Amino acid sequence: MDWQKLQKQIDFIVEADKIKQIYRKNYITDGSRTENDAEHSWHLTLMAVLLLEHANQPQLELLKVVKMLLIHDIVEIDAGDAYVYDDKAKAVQHEKEVKAADRLFALLPEEQAQEYRRLWDEFELKETAEAKFANALDRFHPTLMNYHSGGISWKENKIKRQQVINKNEHMEEGSASLWEYCVKNIIDQAARQGYFSK
Amino acid sequence: MDWQKLQKQIDFIVEADKIKQIYRKNYITDGSRTENDAEHSWHLTLMAVLLLEHANQPQLELLKVVKMLLIHDIVEIDAGDAYVYDDKAKAVQHEKEVKAADRLFALLPEEQAQEYRRLWDEFELKETAEAKFANALDRFHPTLMNYHSGGISWKENKIKRQQVINKNEHMEEGSASLWEYCVKNIIDQAARQGYFSK
Repeated sequence: MDWQKLQKQIDFIVEADKIKQIYRKNYITDGSRTENDAEHSWHLTLMAVLLLEHANQPQLELLKVVKMLLIHDIVEIDAGDAYVYDDKAKAVQHEKEVKAADRLFALLPEEQAQEYRRLWDEFELKETAEAKFANALDRFHPTLMNYHSGGISWKENKIKRQQVINKNEHMEEGSASLWEYCVKNIIDQAARQGYFSK
Repeated sequence: MDWQKLQKQIDFIVEADKIKQIYRKNYITDGSRTENDAEHSWHLTLMAVLLLEHANQPQLELLKVVKMLLIHDIVEIDAGDAYVYDDKAKAVQHEKEVKAADRLFALLPEEQAQEYRRLWDEFELKETAEAKFANALDRFHPTLMNYHSGGISWKENKIKRQQVINKNEHMEEGSASLWEYCVKNIIDQAARQGYFSK
């Protein structure tokens, strides 16, 4: 047993605990409070295993998607959460997140440090089938949560229907079915219920 | 596209959101509040992919462990969380959880309803390599969280060192290394720091 290696893995696991205190803009479905990154990451990973058949390329490597989603928001421990509709915050966010990735993944033993850093970069680049599906879920999830919490977050931030379309349409690259569902059963329904600003 | 099937999957995903409101006895590491089941499930799944090499049978099917851990606490939506050291609550807990499993997994499309119910049963039975490793992580995680939050939960509930040993030693069946680490680097350290009742 390589105890030094195990200790590094545990150091990363303990550090990762901090994403439970990184709160996002979207609410949990009962509307009582906003959701944090750990909850969001759990929900996305559950969606990945349940909704694989709806990926544009369902023969993709599911375990890779799982690993990506489990760590995709870890960088927000240092960089914080930038609201997807806040273009100004988003512009400087990537640089902060790269610095955070440099620090955080280096806590892991060498081989895993490289593996998980590569997975994070791959997620950010949105080029592979796995990254496209993972990113599709990462857009589908808050939209679903916003809708089922009565659109609180859209109302609070005065979001328009077209903004939701623009920020989420790349979902189609990972899952055309989920994007179609999202437009018809979430965005159009939300518009009918007056959740968006005019 | 089978829209009815997708709708059932989404109904389950939305229902599953409720575990974000099921709070456990253990605290997050900064000690500010207790942890909920969604956060716990995310952290366990992350541990599964990072610590696989420490399983007694590391050739096990990792994706099965991942699926098990993502849904292992879903039943607490109906049954609530029973504290592991509360033997009275634990005695009636299993029956409540079986009823919850009957209701919740039935929300999924037929094939997935069967798959995830089987995975939950398998987790509960602790017989396969996957279930043993998943259960080992389910015991290792709160012990690690309790230690790193300064033992608050052990102190609040007047837990003795021997109780922690008794409730967690079956961890060894899934991972002898994690159990060894747990005794030496968590339980013995916690005892030295006065986290347990005499």
